[in-house]
Amino acid sequence: MTDSLTQHWGSVPSTWTGRHLLGLEELSAEEITLLLDQGDRFRKVLMQGDRKIPLLAGKTCVNLFFENSTRTKISFALAARRLGADVVDFTATTSSLGKGETIIDTAKNIEAMQIDAVIVRHGCPGAAKLLAENINSHVFNAGDGPHEHPTQALLDILTIRQRFGKIAGLTVALVGDIAHSRTARSNIWGLQKLGAKVILCGPSTLVSKNWEKLGVEVSYSLDNILDRVDVFNLLRIQFERQVVRPFPSTGEYAHLYGMDKTRLAKAKKNVLIIAPGPINRGLEVTPDVADGPQSAILDQVTNGVAVRMAALWLSLGTEL
Amino acid sequence: MTDSLTQHWGSVPSTWTGRHLLGLEELSAEEITLLLDQGDRFRKVLMQGDRKIPLLAGKTCVNLFFENSTRTKISFALAARRLGADVVDFTATTSSLGKGETIIDTAKNIEAMQIDAVIVRHGCPGAAKLLAENINSHVFNAGDGPHEHPTQALLDILTIRQRFGKIAGLTVALVGDIAHSRTARSNIWGLQKLGAKVILCGPSTLVSKNWEKLGVEVSYSLDNILDRVDVFNLLRIQFERQVVRPFPSTGEYAHLYGMDKTRLAKAKKNVLIIAPGPINRGLEVTPDVADGPQSAILDQVTNGVAVRMAALWLSLGTEL
Amino acid sequence: MTDSLTQHWGSVPSTWTGRHLLGLEELSAEEITLLLDQGDRFRKVLMQGDRKIPLLAGKTCVNLFFENSTRTKISFALAARRLGADVVDFTATTSSLGKGETIIDTAKNIEAMQIDAVIVRHGCPGAAKLLAENINSHVFNAGDGPHEHPTQALLDILTIRQRFGKIAGLTVALVGDIAHSRTARSNIWGLQKLGAKVILCGPSTLVSKNWEKLGVEVSYSLDNILDRVDVFNLLRIQFERQVVRPFPSTGEYAHLYGMDKTRLAKAKKNVLIIAPGPINRGLEVTPDVADGPQSAILDQVTNGVAVRMAALWLSLGTEL
Repeated sequence: MTDSLTQHWGSVPSTWTGRHLLGLEELSAEEITLLLDQGDRFRKVLMQGDRKIPLLAGKTCVNLFFENSTRTKISFALAARRLGADVVDFTATTSSLGKGETIIDTAKNIEAMQIDAVIVRHGCPGAAKLLAENINSHVFNAGDGPHEHPTQALLDILTIRQRFGKIAGLTVALVGDIAHSRTARSNIWGLQKLGAKVILCGPSTLVSKNWEKLGVEVSYSLDNILDRVDVFNLLRIQFERQVVRPFPSTGEYAHLYGMDKTRLAKAKKNVLIIAPGPINRGLEVTPDVADGPQSAILDQVTNGVAVRMAALWLSLGTEL
Repeated sequence: MTDSLTQHWGSVPSTWTGRHLLGLEELSAEEITLLLDQGDRFRKVLMQGDRKIPLLAGKTCVNLFFENSTRTKISFALAARRLGADVVDFTATTSSLGKGETIIDTAKNIEAMQIDAVIVRHGCPGAAKLLAENINSHVFNAGDGPHEHPTQALLDILTIRQRFGKIAGLTVALVGDIAHSRTARSNIWGLQKLGAKVILCGPSTLVSKNWEKLGVEVSYSLDNILDRVDVFNLLRIQFERQVVRPFPSTGEYAHLYGMDKTRLAKAKKNVLIIAPGPINRGLEVTPDVADGPQSAILDQVTNGVAVRMAALWLSLGTEL
Repeated sequence: MTDSLTQHWGSVPSTWTGRHLLGLEELSAEEITLLLDQGDRFRKVLMQGDRKIPLLAGKTCVNLFFENSTRTKISFALAARRLGADVVDFTATTSSLGKGETIIDTAKNIEAMQIDAVIVRHGCPGAAKLLAENINSHVFNAGDGPHEHPTQALLDILTIRQRFGKIAGLTVALVGDIAHSRTARSNIWGLQKLGAKVILCGPSTLVSKNWEKLGVEVSYSLDNILDRVDVFNLLRIQFERQVVRPFPSTGEYAHLYGMDKTRLAKAKKNVLIIAPGPINRGLEVTPDVADGPQSAILDQVTNGVAVRMAALWLSLGTEL
């Protein structure tokens, strides 16, 4: 790292002690705030003409994806490259996994090529933690089954904070497919730690009363909560993860839980609409709302690269 | 961009005003000539030991391919990297497209990661234009269905100009699978704007008389035109795009339209043979002709990287 | 290459005259030693914080893989990038090969994009040599059918030399699936040239007496050779390459040829266990042995990147 970079960016704050980013459940409010603050700084860099800051030059990150993902994988790759790191893709389908290797052996073998960070997506809850316990590299959880997806929640929360200037005191509703959503879980931990109230809203087939144990409110009616919510996070209906269809028809779902003009009119004046892409237009949200002034859906994508840069730099930058 | 680079390469000429490269139909002769001139300059760089000139350092290009392609994708990737830009692959089959997202949403989401250029290949005519109208990034058409494939035509035309020193006054025959060829369309626009005469030649199942409306000559006999053509561009028979086989047998096609020694002997002495790869040896062209002195098939590939560098630099370099 | 790099690394030794790395059969003991020595130097770089040494900046390597491989492909890619070269992937399944192109045409076309090196894996013995005879780029054999896999053997041999300080006088047993192993063939050439004795050991369905013509000993009993072997190289049972299962059951194979604690106790005190990954735990080797102090399985992976850097630099660095 050159002197001018150090001068401008400083060193990683000593309040950050994490080697990995496994989930928001294990982070303190201070640590989450540090990630958000750093994300804000990097977002500014992203909006410039030259978006490269080689704070991690010479480092190598491996995208170890056991599940398909384009968006998250590219976002992490861009985050790493803009920090000057190298990125190598290790896609499970073309890998040695079909040859009977364990996930730990796979990761140890990749690590033995002398790399610095593993960004892992896997269908099993706890996969990222398992790796973190068994390899020396930094591990970043890009989604472990229905468990956590911390960078998705961080980008959601950063988008909210940019709009409202704070998180504490806000009421955030997560609407829709809670059952299959790692994003929901990460959002619940992150938002509550920062002082927000969380409402889960969806059909009873997708939202269980059991979730109340996490300190959230559960509602089966979107219309009943419209006027007291600051942020609606419209989760994607993940048809690809569902064995049994949890509602009679998509029309029925849109009718009861889709965000449209009529519902928006009954919401708070400065309500914020966010949604992890890709959105099903006309299902979770109508096009006019998705593209309207209350929506920050594309801001979320930009923030995604920014918070991933933040996570990588805070964890890897300490070694420089 | 460093001072020494600016000194050597200069700025993008003010006569270039294009943000995108969608097709040759919409370009003037002057703009096409600018692309060819710049391609010639970059070709010289490609023939050196160190082929990097970081004129686009800090820029990010996305290869957004909705159809399979290795050759064009790698050529664009090499072009971008040699200009110092980052390249990210977004392949449609592993993407969110299966999840019901529109092409515009996909592109907007990629763009929100703060990138500069989208290089797009899609099966529908107009796809590149649709993106250009809906996103802020620079759009480069790498093939939109049977419509246009401008960089392929540019590399064809550059190869011709390198051999003859000019385009005006030449007679260029496009032979074979015109019906399925975006390359044919782009060549027709480009060549005619620069003053060449274009003949389309092939079986009536692959070449319609309707094309005469574009100002070209249509011939069903290769033998009849052999002695008055300066350049034969032998288009690939695209079996993969054909529903009904347009001729009785490959032998029959080779017999009537294949370029071989006998036909070459009846052609002009300095005739030029080009062909967009991959060639079917023995079908459109016999191996001795493909590898002989009249052929510039491999020159075309080098020129492909060069004209793509030209297109990227002319469009993106204005922002530096 | 900057002056300080030249000062530190020197030029490629004049005793190295190879343009390609096709196999160990064609190399002299001196050339193999040069590769190993250079591998040792690069290994030290890999163990540092910043692992980049841009000795090949401006060069472009193409990974041309006609067979699936993640490990070798990534290892070569990391080797090239750490030397500052660009790497482009050309995967055969998404390429023009389905369009009827010959392997030589494919390679010539890639080369015409002005690249420097082709790293090739192909199912046919001699594929790398065929390319080397037909293109001007440097060719690196990443496995040609059951013929050779020189960099795998180099990393095996480097790992052995690091442990024993020498190769001459050692007895190395290659155990298991010799019939389907290109690694075995490359190891035999390399080890014998450097003065080691080689024993092939496995069931008669996988090890033929014919191999004795290469100067090796053939044994059908692992237990019989346990006490006179310095290094056991436990080759992977390649179920994916076998048409007929060559032994009654995996249990039977493990019983007769698996390396476990009991066998290890009967081996030499400082015996070395190596194995090309991915290992089948419990088949060729039990987990306690694979993870124990005699094993250098992960060292092999690190050495893999190091010897590939060595091969690339020795062959390409002469042009700088």
